[in-house]
Amino acid sequence: MFPWKTVIKLDNSLSTPLYLQIVNAIVREITSGHLAKSTKVPGTRLMSETLSVNRKTVVQAYDELMAQGWFEAFPSRGTFVSGKLPIVEPHTLDRHKGGEDVAAILQIKSTEFTDYRSKPKHSIEINQGTPDPRLAPIDWIYKECRSLAKTTYGKNFLKYGAARGDEKLRISLSRYLSETRGMNINKENILITRGSQMGIFMILNVLLNKGDTVVVGHSSYDSADWSIKHLGGNPLRIGVDEFGLNIDELEKLLKTTKVSIVYITPHHHYPTTVTLPAERRIQLLELALKYNFAIIEDDYDYDFHYSSSPLLPLASLNHHEHVIYIGSFSKIFAPAIRIGYIVSSRRIINELSKIRGIIDRQGDPVLEHVMALAIESGELQRHLKKTLKIYLSRRDLLCKRLNEKLGGLIEYKVPEGGMALWVKFLSGLKPDADYLVSECLKRGLYLNLCHDFINHQSSMRLGFASVNEQEIETAIDILAEVIKQNAS
Amino acid sequence: MFPWKTVIKLDNSLSTPLYLQIVNAIVREITSGHLAKSTKVPGTRLMSETLSVNRKTVVQAYDELMAQGWFEAFPSRGTFVSGKLPIVEPHTLDRHKGGEDVAAILQIKSTEFTDYRSKPKHSIEINQGTPDPRLAPIDWIYKECRSLAKTTYGKNFLKYGAARGDEKLRISLSRYLSETRGMNINKENILITRGSQMGIFMILNVLLNKGDTVVVGHSSYDSADWSIKHLGGNPLRIGVDEFGLNIDELEKLLKTTKVSIVYITPHHHYPTTVTLPAERRIQLLELALKYNFAIIEDDYDYDFHYSSSPLLPLASLNHHEHVIYIGSFSKIFAPAIRIGYIVSSRRIINELSKIRGIIDRQGDPVLEHVMALAIESGELQRHLKKTLKIYLSRRDLLCKRLNEKLGGLIEYKVPEGGMALWVKFLSGLKPDADYLVSECLKRGLYLNLCHDFINHQSSMRLGFASVNEQEIETAIDILAEVIKQNAS
Repeated sequence: MFPWKTVIKLDNSLSTPLYLQIVNAIVREITSGHLAKSTKVPGTRLMSETLSVNRKTVVQAYDELMAQGWFEAFPSRGTFVSGKLPIVEPHTLDRHKGGEDVAAILQIKSTEFTDYRSKPKHSIEINQGTPDPRLAPIDWIYKECRSLAKTTYGKNFLKYGAARGDEKLRISLSRYLSETRGMNINKENILITRGSQMGIFMILNVLLNKGDTVVVGHSSYDSADWSIKHLGGNPLRIGVDEFGLNIDELEKLLKTTKVSIVYITPHHHYPTTVTLPAERRIQLLELALKYNFAIIEDDYDYDFHYSSSPLLPLASLNHHEHVIYIGSFSKIFAPAIRIGYIVSSRRIINELSKIRGIIDRQGDPVLEHVMALAIESGELQRHLKKTLKIYLSRRDLLCKRLNEKLGGLIEYKVPEGGMALWVKFLSGLKPDADYLVSECLKRGLYLNLCHDFINHQSSMRLGFASVNEQEIETAIDILAEVIKQNAS
Repeated sequence: MFPWKTVIKLDNSLSTPLYLQIVNAIVREITSGHLAKSTKVPGTRLMSETLSVNRKTVVQAYDELMAQGWFEAFPSRGTFVSGKLPIVEPHTLDRHKGGEDVAAILQIKSTEFTDYRSKPKHSIEINQGTPDPRLAPIDWIYKECRSLAKTTYGKNFLKYGAARGDEKLRISLSRYLSETRGMNINKENILITRGSQMGIFMILNVLLNKGDTVVVGHSSYDSADWSIKHLGGNPLRIGVDEFGLNIDELEKLLKTTKVSIVYITPHHHYPTTVTLPAERRIQLLELALKYNFAIIEDDYDYDFHYSSSPLLPLASLNHHEHVIYIGSFSKIFAPAIRIGYIVSSRRIINELSKIRGIIDRQGDPVLEHVMALAIESGELQRHLKKTLKIYLSRRDLLCKRLNEKLGGLIEYKVPEGGMALWVKFLSGLKPDADYLVSECLKRGLYLNLCHDFINHQSSMRLGFASVNEQEIETAIDILAEVIKQNAS
């Protein structure tokens, strides 16, 4: 006798109706091979007694099972598990000989990527340099989204849209980039992304062929490295000095090695925060034309420059389409506002749009449209002006406190722009990342930094933009205490 | 004499300050090779006269150019274009011998994808089956986003989050899927995506190795095909009959061919809208275990079922991790609400999370959190209940009108669920897609349908969910008129 009462567990508190719970339980038993085809099932009266439910519920369940093809009924003979079903071998966990790993059998590919997952409990977080969402006009953004979606006109933005992004945003952005970065572009040169990372991934999907060499700095942005490797490219590291990527070293390399792409953050080099100077920019562009490689210019930091004006992006100089430019609103407003963009030739933007279509179809048209409003209304420019002033004073306070508390143990150069400081430990001081992080955490400070830098380069990239003055004071007190404890 | 007045065009109406316009223009001339290194530049007085601007503006521009390294000044000799810059060859458009295409030189890869781009002017749109955003609680969604982001707690959602998605949504969703689909899962089995398309793309990134065979129906969802091809797989088509994918044909194929993945929309087959019956489901699962292939179950339509209850997904049956399940909120609320999910084993979800990280880092944590609220508060279930009733009546009205206006010229089966009808033209009636679309458009009806189906299969997939009753009446009047005109 089949153990109906054991396998059909009914729960009145679920939103699934009882009859459907019976259906689901029986289907599972059939598909797992425990309930064989052509098995006779108890009549509805008996079953309702066994399960202690109303008979009507069982009738409804059997009707459903028959409609779905799991059961069949023969007049005067009764109800059976359908005889038309294939035979199912009862599965045991090691049906795969010896319990082989299904993921291995299916040849799952593994990728490098470190996810944040859940953050530990903390009162202050120092990261590698993100904006402060508390300063951003998030309420304005959602208010505008809501107003837009209410209108008949706005309802159109709730349907499928173009993979390359909202047209109004592409127009506003092309004007904004022309004015702020001297780019000679129009909407056909722009594609809207979900942020810089997607820009990198999409461009590599279009430009990178398996086995291609991609030049990156030593060190460089780790997520870019992971993307290159995932797509079958070989990241090749060249030196980074106090002016950024060493272009002379690149030139030497090019004489012997075919390079497809150079990935660069000229403004400001990640992680060391330096700016690539004028002569290296020209030299790099000349090499791109001579050796026919593409340049991915990840200009995530352009809008944050404190002393002189920022240097014009490579993409604004004469580059014959060799430069593909990446920018982002996530660095302006908040990491969660996932909107960025790519600037390139019409031809490459067309290819990128197709890639975008197969990656995730399109972006969020309402939010994209509201970003256009942010540019047109001046909300974005006002926010930039405000945060620039605040981030500058946070940078200066961080420097001051570091000098006071850790002078003689560390060195750094005050960065002209961006949201982070690159701090080197001096004189053999080599704190262990795990130690540093766990000791700071005990004191309420979560150091959300790259362990690699701390362990292998005895350096930290300390973000100053996302922490207010009070938080900076407390954070550096804690950090200094832990470092000094570690040093002694 | 260098034509300063010609190349430095100043525009007072721009938000870029005049001095920066001068800087940008000069940098462009240097980097394009027109202004050679070590060239003497006019003094600030002469330049200000030439450009008709205040001398202070020119001084500011020259200071900036010196700070950035483009100019250098020598006491008593004057100001020069920096001598340290590399020599730039003046570029002409055909510096690449014979004007070669840069995209070709950079070996741009091309992908298949048909973007919507801009929609033509129209008063009614019939598509292949999308929800009606006019019915969706969009205002509620944005209101909740706004409230959440205002709180101190909510501000945390504006920072970087987990690549796999908001934890609360993964918990709510695992409960919801357990109740509605009989899945035995928890939050570790779920990853939040940007919609079904991203689900397909991500899974292929993890499962597909170059050259792998992926079985799809003939016909199948074109975007899935494009993703498979882009990632180097070979889509292999097997027949589709009135019950969906022909699993006997698959079984024969498996005896000779190594298949890595089967992509299937069992509920309801795209484009023909039929449901894969119980016995084929079991047969497919048995084959997956025997021949070790993965099944991508794209269950985009599950929540819309009008007659009997939907069949349990393959992923709810005993499948030993061979099934990876895709679902979406975009089909429930609106195409622009770009949230979907993948259900799989913990191991595969971990790999997918890493892929997600390199594709676009993460989703929109605020919107994801609000989707959890939609489930927990019952807003989602209420919306489903409401729309199910409305879509059912739209389906029935569409059928009625088609019978009245085109009876004898077409045939179709009333679908048990979903948002579209699969309509075949009868008796040699073979309207040309371009003709059909353009003639309907003249009359105000935009047929946003797949041309391939119309041209090669003499069929249309007519969505009924996104059009109200009045729109259906008018649309079918127009469609019938055009088809009859074409037939005569």
